[in-house]
Amino acid sequence: MTSPMFEKIALVGIGLIGSSLARVIRREGLAAHVAIATRSPTTLARAKELGLGESYTTDAKEAVRDADLVIVSVPVGSSGEVAQEIAPALKMGAILTDVGSTKASVIAQMQPYVPDGVHFIPGHPLAGTEKSGPDAGFAELFENRWCIFTPLPGTDPQALEKLSEFWRRCGSNIDTMDPQHHDMTLAIVSHLPHIIAYNIVGTADDLESVTKTEVIKYSASGFRDFTRLAASDPTMWRDVCLHNKDAILEMLARFSEDLAFLQRAIRWGDGDKLFDLFTRTRAVRRSIIEAGQDIDVPDFGRQAVEHPAKS
Amino acid sequence: MTSPMFEKIALVGIGLIGSSLARVIRREGLAAHVAIATRSPTTLARAKELGLGESYTTDAKEAVRDADLVIVSVPVGSSGEVAQEIAPALKMGAILTDVGSTKASVIAQMQPYVPDGVHFIPGHPLAGTEKSGPDAGFAELFENRWCIFTPLPGTDPQALEKLSEFWRRCGSNIDTMDPQHHDMTLAIVSHLPHIIAYNIVGTADDLESVTKTEVIKYSASGFRDFTRLAASDPTMWRDVCLHNKDAILEMLARFSEDLAFLQRAIRWGDGDKLFDLFTRTRAVRRSIIEAGQDIDVPDFGRQAVEHPAKS
Repeated sequence: MTSPMFEKIALVGIGLIGSSLARVIRREGLAAHVAIATRSPTTLARAKELGLGESYTTDAKEAVRDADLVIVSVPVGSSGEVAQEIAPALKMGAILTDVGSTKASVIAQMQPYVPDGVHFIPGHPLAGTEKSGPDAGFAELFENRWCIFTPLPGTDPQALEKLSEFWRRCGSNIDTMDPQHHDMTLAIVSHLPHIIAYNIVGTADDLESVTKTEVIKYSASGFRDFTRLAASDPTMWRDVCLHNKDAILEMLARFSEDLAFLQRAIRWGDGDKLFDLFTRTRAVRRSIIEAGQDIDVPDFGRQAVEHPAKS
Repeated sequence: MTSPMFEKIALVGIGLIGSSLARVIRREGLAAHVAIATRSPTTLARAKELGLGESYTTDAKEAVRDADLVIVSVPVGSSGEVAQEIAPALKMGAILTDVGSTKASVIAQMQPYVPDGVHFIPGHPLAGTEKSGPDAGFAELFENRWCIFTPLPGTDPQALEKLSEFWRRCGSNIDTMDPQHHDMTLAIVSHLPHIIAYNIVGTADDLESVTKTEVIKYSASGFRDFTRLAASDPTMWRDVCLHNKDAILEMLARFSEDLAFLQRAIRWGDGDKLFDLFTRTRAVRRSIIEAGQDIDVPDFGRQAVEHPAKS
């Protein structure tokens, strides 16, 4: 066994992402000691039962003391508070990173508290499921997924390379971009899809002409796909909406314009316009499968899971 | 082996639904003879290669002659034309059904051509994947899915029961409702989700600030879910939009109103409103899983397919 990459890693927050990190760190032997901190005593107790680390505390300051790598995995709206809390205890030369879905806001919240000599490198692993909490994590979560860094000017190249190597050993591919571009990109590939999913599920839940029972019963004809994203952690997504407002509002405006155009084509029976769009979108799916970013199994593999004999 | 339910079944249209029917009819021994008709010689040749039936023709009239059960599985916009074509060849006492996603329009198109003595029972199996064509079908497609009938006044109860039994033996559960209610229900559980998916994929494909490559690359963070529905058959979905216009426009109006409300909450930073909606929608997902209409595996089971060791 090679010596671990880090003597001590502190995980602040132990939900889906934090607990998946704990599991892959263990599997790959990336740290001699994993210190786990979370504010909720219940969550902490569960993390301990699951044996996710070497030490457990509700006091984030205690966890980060002497840590060589500190990974903050909390809803983005809590980033500033956490940074303020842990700042005095951070070790000189430590790498401090996060996993938040918005980057400009996280940087604005955390950077002011980061002491000189600590390498703050904002990051975002594009990985997750609709489940949350320490039970939901698994070591394979980051495999073949992208991890995006938005390094600040003057970032130490060695620290950046060390953090990149850490994420590569977790299974990720690495990309680097500026925070504004990250936030605009994520607004379309992640934030808008979640907001639209939440919205359509809300619309269906409010109908009176079609009962809730019918919506549930017949959901396999399309609707159920949206309910997965709409089952994602409410706190996390409230914070994303509040902390990437401008980019999200821009994408919502474009989406609504396009929808008005489509609605008009339906109202006026313009079959050619509909057919053109529906053909163009099919090509996007093909590209995603070719890029290895989704499986080429019908219905996301549900059939393969339900009827293993077929797969 | 018990004797087959039907001497001869004619399948007019041999795409995803038609070819899945062919496969389950064979597996369950539901017919002595399956006659396959499709307009496209290429598709017909492929159906023959796959050995989906006993006889093959591009002439639907020929296929339906002497058939005890005729199942029309074509895009809903072609229903009238098909009915007109096959009407003179239908056998007295035969059951004629369809699988179209809209019912009022299909009834209006087909009923005028149905000869006296033929039992026309409009139907809709709520089953499918994003794939199309005869290669895409599989015998398990209808298992645990609903098949909805919208019988006309005066429908023969024995014919209805026989058709119900056929679909039950294909794996489906049976429901009955009036065509208008069917169309309203499907507009929310199926048509709106598809239209929204097509729309968001179009919006993403049109951006200039985020490149197409980036949209593809980072799609696993939510966007890819929508690309599945948006990869569905363009002809089928153009026809659905054109043939369930009123119900779809009603649902689109509600969706857009709700989205405006949500957008306003984002603009004004109303976290409580966002949190409330995001919590409520989570419960809908739970109900769907409890109703057995989706699998309780994170990420639709993609992880289980990608990493079988974990499942």
